[in-house]
Amino acid sequence: MAESKQKQSNKKRPIIDVDIHEGALYEDLLPYLDNPWKRYITDSDWVMEKHLPYPIPGPDGLNRADAKTPDGRPAGTDLSFMQEQLLDEVGHEYGILTSAFDPSPSSMHGWYEMAHALASAYNDYQIDHWLDKDERLYGSVHVAAQEPQSAVREIERVGSHPKMVQVMLPIDDRPWGDPYYHPIFEAAERHNLMIAMHHNEPPSYYGKYPRYFVEWHCVMPNTHMVQINSMVFNGVFEKYPNLKLMMVEAGFTYAPALMRKMDQQYKALRHEVPWIKRLPSQIIREHVCFSTQPSDELSSEEFMTFVDLMGSDEMICFSTDYPHWDYDSPFQALPSLGEDLENKIFRENARNFYPKLQNTRRPVSQ
Amino acid sequence: MAESKQKQSNKKRPIIDVDIHEGALYEDLLPYLDNPWKRYITDSDWVMEKHLPYPIPGPDGLNRADAKTPDGRPAGTDLSFMQEQLLDEVGHEYGILTSAFDPSPSSMHGWYEMAHALASAYNDYQIDHWLDKDERLYGSVHVAAQEPQSAVREIERVGSHPKMVQVMLPIDDRPWGDPYYHPIFEAAERHNLMIAMHHNEPPSYYGKYPRYFVEWHCVMPNTHMVQINSMVFNGVFEKYPNLKLMMVEAGFTYAPALMRKMDQQYKALRHEVPWIKRLPSQIIREHVCFSTQPSDELSSEEFMTFVDLMGSDEMICFSTDYPHWDYDSPFQALPSLGEDLENKIFRENARNFYPKLQNTRRPVSQ
Repeated sequence: MAESKQKQSNKKRPIIDVDIHEGALYEDLLPYLDNPWKRYITDSDWVMEKHLPYPIPGPDGLNRADAKTPDGRPAGTDLSFMQEQLLDEVGHEYGILTSAFDPSPSSMHGWYEMAHALASAYNDYQIDHWLDKDERLYGSVHVAAQEPQSAVREIERVGSHPKMVQVMLPIDDRPWGDPYYHPIFEAAERHNLMIAMHHNEPPSYYGKYPRYFVEWHCVMPNTHMVQINSMVFNGVFEKYPNLKLMMVEAGFTYAPALMRKMDQQYKALRHEVPWIKRLPSQIIREHVCFSTQPSDELSSEEFMTFVDLMGSDEMICFSTDYPHWDYDSPFQALPSLGEDLENKIFRENARNFYPKLQNTRRPVSQ
Repeated sequence: MAESKQKQSNKKRPIIDVDIHEGALYEDLLPYLDNPWKRYITDSDWVMEKHLPYPIPGPDGLNRADAKTPDGRPAGTDLSFMQEQLLDEVGHEYGILTSAFDPSPSSMHGWYEMAHALASAYNDYQIDHWLDKDERLYGSVHVAAQEPQSAVREIERVGSHPKMVQVMLPIDDRPWGDPYYHPIFEAAERHNLMIAMHHNEPPSYYGKYPRYFVEWHCVMPNTHMVQINSMVFNGVFEKYPNLKLMMVEAGFTYAPALMRKMDQQYKALRHEVPWIKRLPSQIIREHVCFSTQPSDELSSEEFMTFVDLMGSDEMICFSTDYPHWDYDSPFQALPSLGEDLENKIFRENARNFYPKLQNTRRPVSQ
């Protein structure tokens, strides 16, 4: 197994990385904020609610200690440092920015108007400081999804930017398949945007956090399953057939059991959801992709077993999770999988997933 | 696949069934209740809180319509009818009673004293009407686990009954690994009892139910994962090395992904849980079993793939879930798995799991 990993790791190739957490300081957003929002930040040290109750694992908390910039800015908040440490070093063809929003504006449990203002300011900042500055970087539209009308307005405002590829939804205590949120999906589809989901900080486990960070990390996939389940049975993919869903940062090994469970239950209970005409596993295969990080350290054989159980090798997309402490290097994270499958996972599956990447192929000089 | 199922289904053999939901009417419990508890039931029509917000799937709700007794008693509340319809018909060597408590006394969010009185009355009823009446039936100690001191008292009171094999804990909004509940595990171990967990009705998904019954049923395994995770990382199996955990009614296909995720996270974060000295997957293999129902309708090949990914064929125990609507027949539910593995799943794994079954082997006349 060590040897097969070696083989893969030696290969430098252009990749599409579907999860890069770029970030900002509050001061970076001030030019994009009006009052009163601006004044809450400048005059009252307002910060978004935070809930994570654990000690943080590494010397720079949730981030790689070596990702702090030389002039002391937090990891992921400086384009030129990210270019040097990540994009040039790895040889990215494209990277999809998912943000370090923590918690997401969509996770704020009060003051939705401030959430909307922050999301909107962040989108402008992202376009100015990242998307328009590096042709390799594509972005995510941030919204205050707890208030779908404001989210739709924001998607209308920036969703047609040529480098915005998806709408970002946090996974916390809202199952997004609920019809209340469908206007968001309608707007996303109208703008050729996909949906990405990423777990967020507020409690998702029985309404409270497990006791340990490690325990919380092990059941992150559970919250992803709840969302896939919610999106499928609420008929989101029947109503919006061009919509796809990228599940970010919980790996893919949970998919085979979920797909079987959903098929078996659907066969017994489909009278309850008559608008669902296909097997859930088929809907998932056509509409859902999974990012690889954090790698489960599978052997080549195990990896292939899970791919076989998923019934498709087009649902897995590589991600680094840069600059988080548990960053996956494309040279080390995956076992050797053969040229065809590696091409799919490191690049082609993501290209097929994001329509805005399909007609473009960046010249790569690596 | 149809053919391989056929082969297995033709075989009648003595089985150990680890999940039979026997039940009672409130009036059956009155002889075992003192006042004031008794009076709340006789004089005020008190019933336990119920939350399930869905229409129920079959013509007799959550039960098989044909399990209602000829004289109109609810399914599962009459021994002689169960003997005829289930135990004789199938040819049980043993059946483990898990009860139809709905919700469990341990799930009551108030009035713990009434919960304790009900659990205690039910244990007496179970011994008198079931365990002492049929040598095939073994039972579960019911407790009010939200109040561990009362739970320990009840385990001390009935746990040494020769046919009590486990303590039953519902899966709802309490992660049972929490040290607050460890006295329960200490008492269980002292009485040679295992722990069984079964999802219960109160909301476990972001604090509320998903929109549909089918959706809820598909993510039941999630709540089981949270409990395994909680029990392992809180060190329950390090403190009580003879304790084992039977996860009832969520199948087993979720186990391989969970075990890998827990191992990988443990390797990165074990400094947080230094009392855990072995890989989580090893702890799970040594301490956790999974009941089969509801069958995921796997082919023989798929079934074996999941067994291989679990790294042990001694963790799966057959269950019927009688008399629920989605009852699994031992003649139809599983694919053909070969004589050795079928013997393990239909009987030997359960015998090894429950110490009180190990030195006994009921003569079977089938």
